[in-house]
Amino acid sequence: MRGPAVSALLESYAQGAWYRALDEGMPLADATTGETVARLSGTGVDVPGMIAYGRRVGGPALRSLTFHERAATLKDLAKHLTAHTAEFHALSHRTGATARDNAVDVDGGIGTLFGYSSKGRRELPNDTVLPDGPAERLGRGGTFVGQHVYTSRPGVAVQINAFNFPVWGMLEKLAPAFLAGMPSIVASQTAYLTELVVRRIVESGLLPEGTLQLLAASPAGLLEALGEQDTVAFTGSAETGAKLRAHPAVVQGGVRLGVEADSLNCSVLAPDAAPDDPEFALFADQLVTEMTVKAGQKCTAIRRAIVPEHLVDEMIGAVEARLADVVVGDPADPQVAMGPLVGQDQRTEVRKAIAALRTSARPVAGDADRCAPVGADAERGAFLAPLLLHADADAAEPHEVEAFGPVSTIIGYRTAAQAVEAAARGRGSLVGSVVGHDPAAVREIVLGLAPWHGRILVLDRDDAGESTGHGSPLPALVHGGPGRAGGGEELGGIRGVLHHMQRTAVQASPDMATAITGRWTTGSARRRDGVHPFRKSLAELRIGDTIASARRTVTLEDIGHFAEFTGDTFYAHTDPEAAAANPLFGGIVAHGYLVVSLAAGLFVDPAPGPVLANFGVDDLRFLTPVKAGDSIAVTLTAKRITPRSGADYGEVRWDAVVDNADGEPVATYDVLTLVAKEQPAV
Amino acid sequence: MRGPAVSALLESYAQGAWYRALDEGMPLADATTGETVARLSGTGVDVPGMIAYGRRVGGPALRSLTFHERAATLKDLAKHLTAHTAEFHALSHRTGATARDNAVDVDGGIGTLFGYSSKGRRELPNDTVLPDGPAERLGRGGTFVGQHVYTSRPGVAVQINAFNFPVWGMLEKLAPAFLAGMPSIVASQTAYLTELVVRRIVESGLLPEGTLQLLAASPAGLLEALGEQDTVAFTGSAETGAKLRAHPAVVQGGVRLGVEADSLNCSVLAPDAAPDDPEFALFADQLVTEMTVKAGQKCTAIRRAIVPEHLVDEMIGAVEARLADVVVGDPADPQVAMGPLVGQDQRTEVRKAIAALRTSARPVAGDADRCAPVGADAERGAFLAPLLLHADADAAEPHEVEAFGPVSTIIGYRTAAQAVEAAARGRGSLVGSVVGHDPAAVREIVLGLAPWHGRILVLDRDDAGESTGHGSPLPALVHGGPGRAGGGEELGGIRGVLHHMQRTAVQASPDMATAITGRWTTGSARRRDGVHPFRKSLAELRIGDTIASARRTVTLEDIGHFAEFTGDTFYAHTDPEAAAANPLFGGIVAHGYLVVSLAAGLFVDPAPGPVLANFGVDDLRFLTPVKAGDSIAVTLTAKRITPRSGADYGEVRWDAVVDNADGEPVATYDVLTLVAKEQPAV
Repeated sequence: MRGPAVSALLESYAQGAWYRALDEGMPLADATTGETVARLSGTGVDVPGMIAYGRRVGGPALRSLTFHERAATLKDLAKHLTAHTAEFHALSHRTGATARDNAVDVDGGIGTLFGYSSKGRRELPNDTVLPDGPAERLGRGGTFVGQHVYTSRPGVAVQINAFNFPVWGMLEKLAPAFLAGMPSIVASQTAYLTELVVRRIVESGLLPEGTLQLLAASPAGLLEALGEQDTVAFTGSAETGAKLRAHPAVVQGGVRLGVEADSLNCSVLAPDAAPDDPEFALFADQLVTEMTVKAGQKCTAIRRAIVPEHLVDEMIGAVEARLADVVVGDPADPQVAMGPLVGQDQRTEVRKAIAALRTSARPVAGDADRCAPVGADAERGAFLAPLLLHADADAAEPHEVEAFGPVSTIIGYRTAAQAVEAAARGRGSLVGSVVGHDPAAVREIVLGLAPWHGRILVLDRDDAGESTGHGSPLPALVHGGPGRAGGGEELGGIRGVLHHMQRTAVQASPDMATAITGRWTTGSARRRDGVHPFRKSLAELRIGDTIASARRTVTLEDIGHFAEFTGDTFYAHTDPEAAAANPLFGGIVAHGYLVVSLAAGLFVDPAPGPVLANFGVDDLRFLTPVKAGDSIAVTLTAKRITPRSGADYGEVRWDAVVDNADGEPVATYDVLTLVAKEQPAV
Repeated sequence: MRGPAVSALLESYAQGAWYRALDEGMPLADATTGETVARLSGTGVDVPGMIAYGRRVGGPALRSLTFHERAATLKDLAKHLTAHTAEFHALSHRTGATARDNAVDVDGGIGTLFGYSSKGRRELPNDTVLPDGPAERLGRGGTFVGQHVYTSRPGVAVQINAFNFPVWGMLEKLAPAFLAGMPSIVASQTAYLTELVVRRIVESGLLPEGTLQLLAASPAGLLEALGEQDTVAFTGSAETGAKLRAHPAVVQGGVRLGVEADSLNCSVLAPDAAPDDPEFALFADQLVTEMTVKAGQKCTAIRRAIVPEHLVDEMIGAVEARLADVVVGDPADPQVAMGPLVGQDQRTEVRKAIAALRTSARPVAGDADRCAPVGADAERGAFLAPLLLHADADAAEPHEVEAFGPVSTIIGYRTAAQAVEAAARGRGSLVGSVVGHDPAAVREIVLGLAPWHGRILVLDRDDAGESTGHGSPLPALVHGGPGRAGGGEELGGIRGVLHHMQRTAVQASPDMATAITGRWTTGSARRRDGVHPFRKSLAELRIGDTIASARRTVTLEDIGHFAEFTGDTFYAHTDPEAAAANPLFGGIVAHGYLVVSLAAGLFVDPAPGPVLANFGVDDLRFLTPVKAGDSIAVTLTAKRITPRSGADYGEVRWDAVVDNADGEPVATYDVLTLVAKEQPAV
C-alpha cells in the first residue's frame, strides 16, 4: 500500500455526519499498480435528506454572511488546505497523477479558492444583495427608477464532477457557489482524493455546517429531488451532458443546469509562422504538453492541431522529437512526465477511440500499442504511450471522436478561412489556441474562432514566458464553451458567481431602491442632522448622510490663475476669442479639474477625523460648462459603506453633484474615501 | 370587413421574396365578429432554405455594421413604423385589442426599437467586438493578460412569438438580436398584424436583406435545421416551453434556447397597508388594470393577489366596485376598456381553467358566465367578463392553474414570511409586485420574492404617478423569470443583446489584446510619431498614440497654495503634525485633485485644434501619495476611438498614468475627450 491511508470504504458527508454504507462496495484501483485503494458504495445515503438539509441548514447560514465574509472564509479554507498539500499530493499519485499533474489539480484547486476570495473582496459589496448596473430613470420626474439586483437562490448547488480533477474539479465549483450563497452537494463516484479533501475541510470547521456535503456514490436520484431554486453543475462527457439536459427536472422542473463537456479543442498555427519562428517551436512544445499532462485526460486538451499545409510534415517531425523525450512511468517518480490513465476501463475507451480515428487518420508519431513505463508494469497500470495522428482536411472523425487520453490529430489547412472552418467543425469547444505573431492574421483567426469557444489563448514569443498554457482554466477567466462543450460557463471571476444567483429588475421609488439595495439611489432622501458626515466614523455614518455645501463664484481670475498655476492653458480657458469659436463652449469656461477642486474645497472638513483619504473618483462627467461669474455648490451624499475586514477602516463611496446657480448639474461623480471604523482616540 | 386590407392568404417573407402557399389555408377570425380576417397556410415554405439564407446573406451583412450603425438602423426603422401607427392600430382592433391595448402592443413595440437604438449607441462601442470587463493581468511581468470579449454568433435568431402581442412580441425580440448581429426569423402562426408590420419593414428597405424573414406558418421543422450558433427565443405556454427544451436540437444540437413562459404572477399588498392608505387603492386599481388590459391575455398579468388576511374582504369589495365600471365591448370603440379574447378557442381554454380553479376557489367579483358587450355580440365575439376568485391560503389550484384571461384569485396571508411562501408556490414568475410604503416591510418581501422573479415592481404613493405598471416589460429591464416562467431573460437593455452573443476569454500579450479588441490594453505598444495626439483629428488618430509629458516637481508651496486657492485645507495637505499622524500618509501630501490638475497642465496642448473638450474622467485611483519635492509626469495614450454618427466629432478615451520619479504609478485614470472628425478649417 502506497500513499496515505484512506477510508477502506469511502464515506459520504451527509446532514452533518459521515455516513458509511453497510455493504462492501466496489473497489477503486490504483492507476499504476491496480491495487485497491478504497471501496465505494452509495447504498442507503438519504439523498433527498441531504438536499433538504442543505436548503434548511446550509443555505440560511451562508446567506447570513456578506460576500466579504464568505470571501474571507474561502481564504481561510485555502490556507488550511495548503497546509495539507503534501498529503493530497501523495494520495493523488495513486490516481495516476505526476508531480506536474498535482500542481494543476491540487495546487490549482487551492489557488482557485484564493482567487475567488480575492475577487469576492474586491469586486463584490460587503453586503448580501448585489446591484447589477446603475439605476435607470424610468420617468421624467425621477420618482420611478429601475435597478437590477442579484440575490442568492434559496436552493442547493449540486456539483457532479469528472474523475480527472478530484480536487480542482470540486473547488472550482465550490468557490463560486459559496460566494453566491448556495450550499454545495458534491457528487463523486470515484474520488478517494475528493473524500480526503472534504474530510480535511469538515475537520477545519471553517465552513458553516450544511454548506458542503459529499455524496460519495452514484448521483442517481439526485436530480429528481431538485427544484427551481437549485443548480446543477456538471463536468463530464457531452453524452452524459445531453442526458442531463433532457432530464425532467431540467426540462419541466426548472432546475438550472450548467454543462461543461469534453470537446475537440483545437490549436491553430497561424499562416505566417515559419519553421524558424519561435511560434513554430512554441506550438510543438504546447501540443506535446497538452497531450501528456494528466496523460491527456483533460477536457481542455488539444485534440486537433490545425497547421498550415506546407508545415505539416515539419511539425510532425518536431512533435515526434519531443515525444521521444517524454518519460512515461510511475507518477510518484519525479523524473516521470506522464503517468498512466486513471484505470483499465479508461484505457479500453481510449483505444476504441483511436481505432475510430484511424478510419480517416494515420499514426505519425508515438505508438499507442507499445509502452515501457519506468518503474511500473505496462499492463497492470493503465499505461498508454502518446500518439499523434494525421488526417486530411476533409476527414470527419478527428472533428467528432474524442480520445480522452494522450492522443491528438494534426490537420493541414491552406487559408485562414479554412483554419476557422476546420476549428468550427468541432461544433463548439472549451478552449482553442492560436499560435502566431502577426496581429492582423491572429485577429482574423481569433475572431473567427471566438463564437465557437469559451476561451482562446494567443501564444507567441511575447507572452510565452508568462503563459499559463492552453489547457489551464484560470479562476478569472470563463471556463466552458458553446455547442458540444456544453453551453455552460464556470469561473470567469464574478461571472461564475452570478450564474448561481437570480437577476431581478426592481422598479421602485428611489427611496425604496435605496432600502432594497443598500446603495443610495439618486432621487432618494438625503439625511442632514447637523453633523458634517466627514466627522462620522464608519460605524456612525448612514447611507444618505449628506453635506450640502455653500456656494462659490468662479471668477475669470480663478480660471486664469488655475491655468497659469497648473499649466493647463488650453485655449477654452485662456483665449476669449478662440473659446468663443469652440462649438461646445462659446466662450471662456472653467477647467473641469478646477470645478472638482473647488467642489472639494466646498465639501471638505479640514480637521483630523475619521476620514483618512480620498483614494479615487469614478464616473466623473462634466455636464454644463461653468463660465466666469457662475457660482457652484456641491452636494455630497453617502452612497455605499463598505467596512474592510481585517482593517480598522473601510471605504465610503459618496455621490457628488455640483450644480450652478440655476440648479443645473455641472458635474456628477462618485468620490471614494477611506474612513476609520471608529472615531480616532483623542 | 373592418380595418385595413390584409392579404387574403398570409405570406411568408423568405429568402428575399414573399411566398404564398398554393392551398387555401385556415381562416383567422376577427375576435369581435368572428369574420375571417385572413387565411394561413405554411405549405411549401422552404424552412431550411430560410435558415441558410439568414446565415449566408443576412448575418454577414449585419455583422459588417458596427453596433452604432445597427443602432442607427433601428432608430430609422422605429421612425418609419411610427408613420404607420394608425394603420397598425386599426388592424390590431380585429385581434380584440382596444386603444389601450394598442398602446402596449403597437406603440410599446416601436418604443422598444427606440429604446434599443439609444442603448446601443450609448452603451456599446462603435465597433463589432464588445470587450466585457477590464483586462486582467495574468502574469507579474505584464506580458500576459486576459480579456473577455463578446462576438456575434454566425447563426440565425429564431423567434417564436405568442398570439397576444403581434407587434411588440416581434420587435422586442428583433431589436436585441439585430444589435447583436444576428439575423432574425420570426415565426408566427396567427398574426395578420405581424405580417402587415413585416411588409412595412420590408418595403422600407431599411434592414439589410436577409436580416428579417417571416415564417407565417407553423414552426414545424424549424428546430431540426438549427445548430450550435443559432438561438431560439420562445414566448408562450410553460408546457410548450418544456417541449422545446426537450427537443433534440436543444438537448444534443447545442441550440441556445430562451423561454419566456406564462407564469402565475403575484401582487402582494404589504402587511402594514391600511384601507385608508393610498397603497390600498393603488393595489385594487392595478389589479383591475392587469385583469382587463388585453382581456388578461398577458403573460405578465396578476394571477394571484396576495393580501393581508384581515383586508381580504375589503379588497374584494374594492375590486368589485372597480370591475363594475369596466366597459366590455367592441375594441374599436374608444369608450371600451376591455375587448374580447383573441378567439373562441381561447375562451374555451379560459373557461376550462376557471373550472379547475373553482376546485378550491370561489368567485367573489364579476361573472364569467355573463357578458353584455357594448356594440358587439357576446357569443359571436370571444367575450368573457372579468372574474375575481377567492381561495384559502392552502389551496393548490391558484398556484398551479393559469387562466389566460381576465381572471385573478385573491389569497390571504398573515405574516410576511407567509406572503413570500405563497408567492414562491407559483414556482417562478416573470413579474411580481409589492404594494406598500414601509421600506423595511417592503424590503423583506422584495428580497424574499426576488429569487423567484425576473422583475418586481414596488408600487407606492411615491412612484404611482410615474409607474409603468406591473404588467409592462420595459426595454431597459429584464423580462423573463426563473422556474415556471421559463428561466430565460429578454430585454434588460444590453443584457438582452449579450444573450445572442458568445462570451470568450481571450488570453494574449497586451499587443494582441489591443489588436483583437480595438481597445488599447495596458502594456501594449505606445506610438510616438512626434505629433502631439491632441493635434490629430479623429480620422488621423490611432489607438496607441501617446504623449509622454515632461516632469514637474510638486513643491510644498504648490500644495499650500492649492489648499488656499481651492479651500481644500484638509489637514493632510496643510498641517505637518496632523498629516504625520495619518496612518496612510505619514506627512504632508499633495491633493489628488492637484495631481490630476497638474497632469492636465503637462499633457494639454493649448492651441485650438481637433480636441474640443474634456467631458469626463473614469476610474481615477490615487495609488501612491505625492509628497512635497516629488516630481510627476503623465503618459496619455489613445485607448478607444468612437466616432459619433450624425455629429462632426466623436469620443476619445485616453489611458492616463501619472508616475513619480521612481516610476511608481501615482494615479491612473481614463480621460474622456470630444475630438473633431476632421481638422478644423484654418
